Amino acid sequence: MTTLPAAPPGRLDDVVLMRHGAGGRAMRALIHRIFARGMVPSTDTMIGLDAFDDGAAFRIGDEWLVITTDSHVIKPVEFPGGDIGRLSVSGTVNDLAMMGATEPLGITCAVVIEEGFPVDVLTRIHDSMLAAAREAGVPIVTGDTKVMGRGEVDGIILNTTGIGLTSHLVRDRGLQAGDRILVSGSIGDHGMAIMAARHKLELGGDLASDVAPLNHLVRAALEAGADGVVAMKDPTRGGVASALHEMAEKARVGIVLEESSLPIRAQVAAAADLIGIDPLVVANEGKAVMGVRPEVADAVLAALRAHPLGRDAAIIGTAIADYPGNVILDTGFGRRLVAEPEGELLPRIC
Amino acid sequence: MTTLPAAPPGRLDDVVLMRHGAGGRAMRALIHRIFARGMVPSTDTMIGLDAFDDGAAFRIGDEWLVITTDSHVIKPVEFPGGDIGRLSVSGTVNDLAMMGATEPLGITCAVVIEEGFPVDVLTRIHDSMLAAAREAGVPIVTGDTKVMGRGEVDGIILNTTGIGLTSHLVRDRGLQAGDRILVSGSIGDHGMAIMAARHKLELGGDLASDVAPLNHLVRAALEAGADGVVAMKDPTRGGVASALHEMAEKARVGIVLEESSLPIRAQVAAAADLIGIDPLVVANEGKAVMGVRPEVADAVLAALRAHPLGRDAAIIGTAIADYPGNVILDTGFGRRLVAEPEGELLPRIC
Repeated sequence: MTTLPAAPPGRLDDVVLMRHGAGGRAMRALIHRIFARGMVPSTDTMIGLDAFDDGAAFRIGDEWLVITTDSHVIKPVEFPGGDIGRLSVSGTVNDLAMMGATEPLGITCAVVIEEGFPVDVLTRIHDSMLAAAREAGVPIVTGDTKVMGRGEVDGIILNTTGIGLTSHLVRDRGLQAGDRILVSGSIGDHGMAIMAARHKLELGGDLASDVAPLNHLVRAALEAGADGVVAMKDPTRGGVASALHEMAEKARVGIVLEESSLPIRAQVAAAADLIGIDPLVVANEGKAVMGVRPEVADAVLAALRAHPLGRDAAIIGTAIADYPGNVILDTGFGRRLVAEPEGELLPRIC
Repeated sequence: MTTLPAAPPGRLDDVVLMRHGAGGRAMRALIHRIFARGMVPSTDTMIGLDAFDDGAAFRIGDEWLVITTDSHVIKPVEFPGGDIGRLSVSGTVNDLAMMGATEPLGITCAVVIEEGFPVDVLTRIHDSMLAAAREAGVPIVTGDTKVMGRGEVDGIILNTTGIGLTSHLVRDRGLQAGDRILVSGSIGDHGMAIMAARHKLELGGDLASDVAPLNHLVRAALEAGADGVVAMKDPTRGGVASALHEMAEKARVGIVLEESSLPIRAQVAAAADLIGIDPLVVANEGKAVMGVRPEVADAVLAALRAHPLGRDAAIIGTAIADYPGNVILDTGFGRRLVAEPEGELLPRIC
């Protein structure tokens, strides 16, 4: 599920453009003008499309049933650190986890394949899906197979939809002034790895995607922080900057980030510097951004760091009452606004 | 969800071919060799991919939670009787209904759009989804938007995944000798309409797809037949022939159809005759095939016929103990085997 706050102004183009799928302002416009129209509004027992959260949720007895969907069009389908199979399972597991459903019931898998696609690559992708599903402890329970002619689709598209139950539903809008902002590890790894692979850049070092299912990590954080964990998002398209902008806008708070506390790998920082891009806007596929009450921040941080996928977790900022809807970077020498990305820089990043 | 019985013999090709997506034997081979490998097996509380039913199901308290997914690649996206939007919602609602979940909780919608796709067509498709969703009484609760470059995908692909609860789970394998086979209306309408539209055939008459959400119709049938409704499938790719072959094979019964009782519209029969194709293998998108105990057959038929979408419902055959796995057509002059289709004749039929 693509997440997005209120509709931005501006007219809609006559045709769909690449930026309409880039996870930013243009996409939000398209969704608001077309897909959000006429939708059934959320209620006390149903969180629907109008909430623009990581997925939808239905009250069932004492629990919430969470559902989330994503189609994956990443190019190349195999990349350093993962492939479209691992990406699909992880993306869906993570969207469920961001709403508190850390023990997914099941995942569906619908493939659209181009005629002529190599069966051995398809087999590797499937094996990778299975491995990621085992890692997350979720069965792939049903699917669909379509084949399109040569030139009708570029390679393979994978849709995964996941469902899970939770008694502790977490939204993306729970921040209040004083809450601490955590990230579960280094930022920008996925996007920089894809950029390097796509353009065959020699960026030095070993850039690799962080793609991973985070449900066990998130469960540990929720056990440590309980109701003190008030907001979660996975910073995919548009990166940490985009995720924080949504959180800030929905909760009507400002967010101040401390630049010195941002966990960024040396090779990612170097590559980002070379290309002239801010790691804050680069996509991640194995990271969570969390807003937590100050009194549980240390406990949640410790729980994250105790998990292999959270070793580099850090407290990176604080929610404030001023500047609602804005994200501010404290560089140590001064403060500047972090712009909300117009959209993901690179098409087909996920 | 594509449904399929046991794995057929034969080697797998090195690359994916059109017939691997055609809903028949070749697709079954691909799924068995790749996607079914390593899947978590079904249990008393979970019906998974290995069951190859219309969807998966999870036991939750006293009910079953059913989930089903389909990606739609139909060409043209707008066709006589419907469009890809109505098709997606109906297909998903119908797969849920075939397992007894006639009051769906929600549907997800993930679109992949080609750069340059007209916004007005996208708007019409969305309006059509909304209308079908209202008809079925189901909210579209979450979604995803991806854009691919020009030439990277042909137009638009729509994935819909649906969930629903039911206390009366219906499978596709419940037939026993003596059960009656019903179809909820005329057969072959969707496929013949698409063929005519695709090839701009002048087939005369008003060929139109039957695409419609069947959940209310199926609920009426289940209320009339209760536990006497023992098997359901929607005869999409591969038509009624393919659906009955699956039912027969899974239940290890034979099925005898009476040709004179098959409801086929005059214009569909004429067009099929002209092209030289059996309406039994032509796709439907608004029909259900049901197996019912003989004592409830008349009541179920009456319930179907009382609904606007079931006016042409008919009892078309009987399950027998002989010839397990086979479908036999009684022409009135003799009997012949109905071959299981290798796959759908036309690519991108749904």
